[in-house]
Amino acid sequence: MAATSSPALSQALLSRPSLPSTGAPNNQSSLSLPSFSRIKLSPLSAAHRRRRLPSSASRSAIRASSAAVETVGATAETSLVEKSINTIRFLAIDAVEKANSGHPGLPMGCAPMGHILYDEVMRYNPKNPYWFNRDRFVLSAGHGCMLQYALLHLAGYDSVKDEDLKSFRQWGSRTPGHPENFETPGIEVTTGPLGQGVANAVGLALAEKHLAARFNKPDSEIVDHYTYVILGDGCQMEGIANEACSLAGHWGLGKLIAFYDDNHISIDGDTEIAFTESVDTRFEGLGWHVIWVKNGNTGYDEIRAAIKEAKAVKDKPTLIKVTTTIGFGSPNKANSYSVHGSALGAKEVDATRKNLGWPYEPFHVPEDVKSHWSRHIPTGAAFEAEWNAKFAEYEKKYKEEAAELKSIVKGEFPAGWEKALPTYTPESPADATRNLSQQCLNALAKVLPGLLGGSADLASSNMTLLKMFGDFQKNTPEERNVRFGVREHGMGAICNGIALHSPGLIPYCATFFVFTDYMRAAMRISALCEAGVIYVMTHDSIGLGEDGPTHQPVEHLASFRAMPNILMLRPADGNETAGAYKVAVLNRKRPSVLALSRQKLPQLPGTSIDGVAKGGYIISDNSTGNKPDLILLGTGSELEIAAKAADELRKGGKTVRVVSFVSWELFDEQSAEYKESVLPASVTARVSIEAGSTFGWEKIVGSKGKAIGIDRFGASAPAGKIYKEFGITAEAVVAAAKELSS
Amino acid sequence: MAATSSPALSQALLSRPSLPSTGAPNNQSSLSLPSFSRIKLSPLSAAHRRRRLPSSASRSAIRASSAAVETVGATAETSLVEKSINTIRFLAIDAVEKANSGHPGLPMGCAPMGHILYDEVMRYNPKNPYWFNRDRFVLSAGHGCMLQYALLHLAGYDSVKDEDLKSFRQWGSRTPGHPENFETPGIEVTTGPLGQGVANAVGLALAEKHLAARFNKPDSEIVDHYTYVILGDGCQMEGIANEACSLAGHWGLGKLIAFYDDNHISIDGDTEIAFTESVDTRFEGLGWHVIWVKNGNTGYDEIRAAIKEAKAVKDKPTLIKVTTTIGFGSPNKANSYSVHGSALGAKEVDATRKNLGWPYEPFHVPEDVKSHWSRHIPTGAAFEAEWNAKFAEYEKKYKEEAAELKSIVKGEFPAGWEKALPTYTPESPADATRNLSQQCLNALAKVLPGLLGGSADLASSNMTLLKMFGDFQKNTPEERNVRFGVREHGMGAICNGIALHSPGLIPYCATFFVFTDYMRAAMRISALCEAGVIYVMTHDSIGLGEDGPTHQPVEHLASFRAMPNILMLRPADGNETAGAYKVAVLNRKRPSVLALSRQKLPQLPGTSIDGVAKGGYIISDNSTGNKPDLILLGTGSELEIAAKAADELRKGGKTVRVVSFVSWELFDEQSAEYKESVLPASVTARVSIEAGSTFGWEKIVGSKGKAIGIDRFGASAPAGKIYKEFGITAEAVVAAAKELSS
Repeated sequence: MAATSSPALSQALLSRPSLPSTGAPNNQSSLSLPSFSRIKLSPLSAAHRRRRLPSSASRSAIRASSAAVETVGATAETSLVEKSINTIRFLAIDAVEKANSGHPGLPMGCAPMGHILYDEVMRYNPKNPYWFNRDRFVLSAGHGCMLQYALLHLAGYDSVKDEDLKSFRQWGSRTPGHPENFETPGIEVTTGPLGQGVANAVGLALAEKHLAARFNKPDSEIVDHYTYVILGDGCQMEGIANEACSLAGHWGLGKLIAFYDDNHISIDGDTEIAFTESVDTRFEGLGWHVIWVKNGNTGYDEIRAAIKEAKAVKDKPTLIKVTTTIGFGSPNKANSYSVHGSALGAKEVDATRKNLGWPYEPFHVPEDVKSHWSRHIPTGAAFEAEWNAKFAEYEKKYKEEAAELKSIVKGEFPAGWEKALPTYTPESPADATRNLSQQCLNALAKVLPGLLGGSADLASSNMTLLKMFGDFQKNTPEERNVRFGVREHGMGAICNGIALHSPGLIPYCATFFVFTDYMRAAMRISALCEAGVIYVMTHDSIGLGEDGPTHQPVEHLASFRAMPNILMLRPADGNETAGAYKVAVLNRKRPSVLALSRQKLPQLPGTSIDGVAKGGYIISDNSTGNKPDLILLGTGSELEIAAKAADELRKGGKTVRVVSFVSWELFDEQSAEYKESVLPASVTARVSIEAGSTFGWEKIVGSKGKAIGIDRFGASAPAGKIYKEFGITAEAVVAAAKELSS
Repeated sequence: MAATSSPALSQALLSRPSLPSTGAPNNQSSLSLPSFSRIKLSPLSAAHRRRRLPSSASRSAIRASSAAVETVGATAETSLVEKSINTIRFLAIDAVEKANSGHPGLPMGCAPMGHILYDEVMRYNPKNPYWFNRDRFVLSAGHGCMLQYALLHLAGYDSVKDEDLKSFRQWGSRTPGHPENFETPGIEVTTGPLGQGVANAVGLALAEKHLAARFNKPDSEIVDHYTYVILGDGCQMEGIANEACSLAGHWGLGKLIAFYDDNHISIDGDTEIAFTESVDTRFEGLGWHVIWVKNGNTGYDEIRAAIKEAKAVKDKPTLIKVTTTIGFGSPNKANSYSVHGSALGAKEVDATRKNLGWPYEPFHVPEDVKSHWSRHIPTGAAFEAEWNAKFAEYEKKYKEEAAELKSIVKGEFPAGWEKALPTYTPESPADATRNLSQQCLNALAKVLPGLLGGSADLASSNMTLLKMFGDFQKNTPEERNVRFGVREHGMGAICNGIALHSPGLIPYCATFFVFTDYMRAAMRISALCEAGVIYVMTHDSIGLGEDGPTHQPVEHLASFRAMPNILMLRPADGNETAGAYKVAVLNRKRPSVLALSRQKLPQLPGTSIDGVAKGGYIISDNSTGNKPDLILLGTGSELEIAAKAADELRKGGKTVRVVSFVSWELFDEQSAEYKESVLPASVTARVSIEAGSTFGWEKIVGSKGKAIGIDRFGASAPAGKIYKEFGITAEAVVAAAKELSS
């Protein structure tokens, strides 16, 4: 009876341990897991089971009789399982064929594990892809997206209807060439660039472990889901995967289960030519539990047993190496790179249909397969309803925690949160914006329950520690300071996963600004997938001094200003740093990069939190009628220089406006009137100063203006010396201004 | 006798096997290596040995008696070794103290392995840091650069004199805050950004293995050196290190010996907080030989034995995990993060002096230490002289090979090499620039002996295979197609290592242009360290179509135009692709990025190889007197669109100039007269079109012009559809032009 119950139900059972738990998910292991013998279902028992939808009465009965049994087992006779798997294969084949573009090989090889995951293992609600407590699935090998689209289609997601499958990779479709969470509900994260997905999955699993530790109670495991990921050889080769998986092992993310599609083929051919390491051994070194499924093509029970084993290992993430045949079923192209990234071609599609005994028209889902999968709609609704009821109970008992959790689940922040941000006056002591940033982070952590993050081994330089919290670690996952180690790329992608786990989670991460180069691929995905990660990037110019050009960003401001959907903010002092944080927190679908100084900066008159929100604004002006002789623009640490130069020029009788140009993107979004009020078209005598590349500044200062900046690499010397030698000085501004306005 | 002979000499011996070799360095293992018992030198034998400089007579004697014996052993009594090690420690302490900036912890912990490497093991010539056959050393943990400066100083390099040590981290000094090959002869590569150095070292070792396989003869191992690298916990955490080390294992780089400074401390404190994986196990998985030196602080013989063992393993790279104490000798700060990145402070320096029994003034090198190290100047000169003599012999016997090798060693290319580049006429068939790029690469490979490279698992998409060569692999290292696997970051850094190995090596590497985001940190180092790597970046816009926004670069052109010392080239057709390669090959101290199309492009009238060298040039014009009504600018795949729009506008009676703006950097370098002849200041009606961010174009088109581009992420659909939907069309150019010139 227990063995034939729905595995989804069984997982639901798992979430209700009969023994008290201390709240930390590690302690879920108090549930004993007896060994499991494989059971071949008779058609009768399968039919029987399909009738048993999770009404609360039947669930109680099951609970009473098998509370300690977890099942991962077939939900249908093998012939139907195989038919379902072939349905997945042919939906992928047909969609790629129709588009004449795409990657059929992976879906054909991974269809068995895909079927087992979505039909037998995972808990989700197809009609609400955003149900909080759902299991998360990530296809790190994103090029195989037809696998996931086929699965979402079978499971009943509205985002992937028949017509969506037929418009695969076409303009405006919900089935783009790689999985995109912002296009297709049911897709958790945006993958395709290899290695990102598995790192996102680490972030999703981190979020689960953190929230479970904070909110679960002995009588209510209100946060309780798994994170599954499929990654291929390509992901495995990428450094980011190793970074993230090293952290997953370190953190003991026991509910992260990764399927490594070990098919020995990548685009250039057999992996023998470039990838002969022992992945198993490496993952053992990384602290993972490793299982090898030798027959991933037809060894369904092997896959099931592996998942069961993985779930039983609570203190380590599990890598299930599943040896598959890429393009399984294609008589002439299977096991070759030719099936990786191109349509099979009509002839080979026919041959594959014959080979797999598939008599159907393209895009056909056989009735019995359809009927079998149809239970996921009511089951999913029941899962969510059950969780909602559980949450209602939780809310009654644990009011405060429920309010916090709700804020995280819904992304609604406490009213007036922004009042927690510190403000400064010109009399406040001079300080580095990295220190002022830490004041903001610590102020926000008190009012934003979803704020958590850390640094890539530079916490004491980036100034990112939240003082009231300890470290998020394997045994203290309820804490909020995350120690990423020197793993910038993994850090960025993990933060994407955290941000996309729940709308109210606000991950921040930090390193030196120059090392955004290490994590740029993850930051671009933040921007694309609308993950509002806050990038705290200190040591933002030659102002860091002696570490020299390897550590001094030059082109980085320009490089992010050119990137779509990301906010590049370079605050000049305390008020602007607070303003930058306000913007960053409000922008939940757009990441923010804060460039912060290592060196002390004065608190300037005229700066404000509200000014930052406009991107560019006047901090001082002695002109009237919107007609200054000169406009000086600065950002960050150079705004002080612009202000000093203005003082000097005003002494000489000029009318001078000083504009803080803290975020180009935000200024761009202002009304034409506002822009004209700050940068009147008639005033062409403009000088900008910024300790970075002048690339792009021509747009702001115009062809009659002058941009002072750094169009070479930096140098190793004390900061003041470099500023002087590079001409980033008030004198240089004054000289340029005099030339322009003479 | 053999055991007490100079190890440098012994290595020289090793390079002269008494058995014939087939030329592949693997076969060097035909030399039998008897096991080695440690020998404590008596002061007498040390003194005795110091007198035996490598005169050719004594060398012959040694060769005769001990040809098959390799020695790694002490060259002085232990007390003198310890004194030398403490000299290194205090030079580092004193320099950091004087600068009040820097990282004393690593040099204090790694001084023993540093001493053994530079004094006992490595072959180099201090008076010619560029001697071809020198052993290479890379300090991947570049922040510990005072270790290397101290070693170069003791060894007699002119680049690090006493005054250089005293101006550590100061403006204009040769001892910047991290090792910079372009500032300090004797430094091989530029490190500091973690993980880069070990990947550079893989490139250096690849170059050695490749050249040895190509040029060594049974009677002359003319290429024969080791590559040593020290990396720390920080490097180990970085994904790039795993990528590069996976390849090193795959390639069996037996002459790569890495010292992992296992000191359990990184900036955030004990590595326990973020780095608990088993590095040993991981490296075993990567196919390395792993040795653990448990006492790296005083276990000198353990270190020596490990190096000996590493050298005996010919078919695998070796990781020697050396457990050390960071800041060894500092009574109050050793083994803590506080000694990692700050000066010890006067009080702790005093305490350390007392603790280590160091009575000397700052920067003092005791006479006996000085005298001991002084032998490296004559020995080094002898090594080089010996190699030169050997090369003269080689040249007599193997004229052709010697000429090729010389070209690689000197960076002098065969006269007229550029004539090999293909040229095209408008009648030549339309083709994708990625295909035209392959024609260029294959043409150049015939005339440039140092051209080698490959792709990150996209060879058949990037079109980078050299058809006349096979794959560089463990057992075919003489070949020139390098298979990097999906490891962009490692690939870039490995190419930096190859480029810096010898001036005539021209590494190229390839991936999709968007994935420069994965390798940007390595590309920036190429630019900074003057490594003329050629980056072959295909699929350079939305023109790649269905793969969608994760694969479509947008901001990438702008992001490289903003980077110092790198050439961003976007050729439009065959002639321009050939022109781009000519520029790239000529720029040996500046990397080039070639953005190439996936889609077919016509061969345009007016394009030329010479035009490309100017960065921007006129491809068609129906105006006179340098006064066209309109100037249309395009790059790459959009130059065709500009040309089409010009045709249309000319039909309407306008005089229109079309400018190919293939490289902004090259155009910037032209004379003011030339620039005015292409873009006359008086003509403000300018329209640019480029399928990428418009960021930066204002500088070219001016505030009265119009830049057509893409300031959002791309989309998944057939390329033609996206171009149309995004308005990257001739119609859009015509419309903009009409508006400007009406």
